[in-house]
Amino acid sequence: MSAQQQPSPEHFFDTANAYQRSAALKAAVELDIFTAVAEGNTDAPSIAAACGASERGARILCDYLVVIGFLTKEGGRYGLTQDSAFFLDRRSPAYMGSALDFLLSPTLMAGFEDLATAVRKGGSQSPGGGTVAPENPVWVKFARAMAPMMMPAAQEIARLVGGDAGRKLKVLDIAAGHGVFGITLAQQNPAAEVVALDWPAVLEVARENAERAGVAGRYSVIEGSAFEAEFGTDYDVVLLTNFLHHFDPPTCEQLLRKVRAALADGGVAVTLEFVPDEDRVTPPIPAAFSLVMLAGTPGGDAYTYPELERVFTNAGFSGNERHPLTGAPQTIIVSHR
Amino acid sequence: MSAQQQPSPEHFFDTANAYQRSAALKAAVELDIFTAVAEGNTDAPSIAAACGASERGARILCDYLVVIGFLTKEGGRYGLTQDSAFFLDRRSPAYMGSALDFLLSPTLMAGFEDLATAVRKGGSQSPGGGTVAPENPVWVKFARAMAPMMMPAAQEIARLVGGDAGRKLKVLDIAAGHGVFGITLAQQNPAAEVVALDWPAVLEVARENAERAGVAGRYSVIEGSAFEAEFGTDYDVVLLTNFLHHFDPPTCEQLLRKVRAALADGGVAVTLEFVPDEDRVTPPIPAAFSLVMLAGTPGGDAYTYPELERVFTNAGFSGNERHPLTGAPQTIIVSHR
Repeated sequence: MSAQQQPSPEHFFDTANAYQRSAALKAAVELDIFTAVAEGNTDAPSIAAACGASERGARILCDYLVVIGFLTKEGGRYGLTQDSAFFLDRRSPAYMGSALDFLLSPTLMAGFEDLATAVRKGGSQSPGGGTVAPENPVWVKFARAMAPMMMPAAQEIARLVGGDAGRKLKVLDIAAGHGVFGITLAQQNPAAEVVALDWPAVLEVARENAERAGVAGRYSVIEGSAFEAEFGTDYDVVLLTNFLHHFDPPTCEQLLRKVRAALADGGVAVTLEFVPDEDRVTPPIPAAFSLVMLAGTPGGDAYTYPELERVFTNAGFSGNERHPLTGAPQTIIVSHR
Repeated sequence: MSAQQQPSPEHFFDTANAYQRSAALKAAVELDIFTAVAEGNTDAPSIAAACGASERGARILCDYLVVIGFLTKEGGRYGLTQDSAFFLDRRSPAYMGSALDFLLSPTLMAGFEDLATAVRKGGSQSPGGGTVAPENPVWVKFARAMAPMMMPAAQEIARLVGGDAGRKLKVLDIAAGHGVFGITLAQQNPAAEVVALDWPAVLEVARENAERAGVAGRYSVIEGSAFEAEFGTDYDVVLLTNFLHHFDPPTCEQLLRKVRAALADGGVAVTLEFVPDEDRVTPPIPAAFSLVMLAGTPGGDAYTYPELERVFTNAGFSGNERHPLTGAPQTIIVSHR
């Protein structure tokens, strides 16, 4: 008896068709299937009626959502998984269906249309530097779409470096996007003042969010590129969330020198990143993220922790601590001036 | 202690990005990464050199292929999985990388670009009936690309209904495509005569394959649509491989009446299909196939075995037997006149 299994083309076939999973999830969110099921529509005819869909379409899509783990099916009735109820019912405070507007935006997907060419060249084929091109409008989409997905990380960052409520805290939020990292800090510490830096069109979104969160009075902005704008000085905290992965190590180092110069004594830089293990193939989500950077940027990457330590050390920082998130595939790194 | 896990956005994020798996597999096949590894190139620099790729691109793509289960990585060296060695090394007789030319063809992928609309309407949005439009050139791609993936099924069909070598056998291969089902029968039984039916451009591929297999002398063709062409009579075997799923049950029934009329006494129709269980959500590959039919056809589906029995019975067939394949996610159904 051999321990070898018979070769099977199933994984090849399943992976070739994997793009259909993205499309099915997108269709389900567009049609609001998960909210319909949450509201008690549990068979194809009633889901179809609630979502303005055909019965055949609702039945086939819902069965597919069971196959890929977003719905359950028992005795012919569909139900939500725990995660779908939490993240995909539009009435849930943690709803993150909107994240697909960014994750499946034509800009991001374009990088994968001819991935072989990106592999040949070693970086994005998109004109002007891919997603890191100046004022790329995809970052407005990012700002509008990705806030819910970032809440667990924002809360953990506020807990780690938000300081005691009432203690003055000067915060610079680089590439602020939706702004939730700085805004969450400002909500937790009523003495915190936040300066958000990003492209002007993106800052409109951050400003709206600051207004809605009631912290607009302690929220100001710097328009422009993190590499060119004047940061100011004496910051207690500089936030670098989902940013360093877009650039090669020398570019990161150059930016980090500038960040360090803007920090007050005792100040910290807070980095949020996908950090794969040193084997670069685990855990799956951080390790897989490297391909997004190959497809979308000229020189970005998902850096291991030793690689991140190196760029911070080279830029003059005195030490780093890492804090892996629970419930999200990212890691927070706190780096001391 | 609760048995509930903390909600995690990981499955949502991973599924949103699933299209990247298809793109990575396509790039790897285009660059012939698997053959390069099989030939002894096991680190990023040597794979890059062998494939005409950048080192950064090769490293990131290969790491991603480890994450999604197509390569192994031990001590920084890449290796092939058992399935990759069997199916994706270009020198393997079972090489099926070419299947991506069909599976990831713009025609098939177009059906998933606006899947929500297909769910609303209940069928393909493509003009003229999607993949079942007359003479759709995607079937030439299918014929050129999919033969290797069909070999296990072709061999099993030949074993089941090929008859004793030397016993005369008249075979009609409907929607023959690459022709391998009929050709494999003809190779096994030197007294078998095969008539292949398909669009003219597709039959050129089948004829080439028959020539190469040395059975061209017993291979003739009928050009046109299975619904309109004259089949002739007295067939011992009519092959219906990967065909019925494109149509709704009344259309299948109408075709099967015509098939039955073309069979000799004691003749059989042989169907190859993705057959999900009656719950329609298992096994994953046959169950998921239903969505491909929603996206690509006006009324097709992946039918359960009772549904297939019903259309055959309604068309006058006297009985059916099913033979699930091992090593492929499809089922063979033999239906007696």
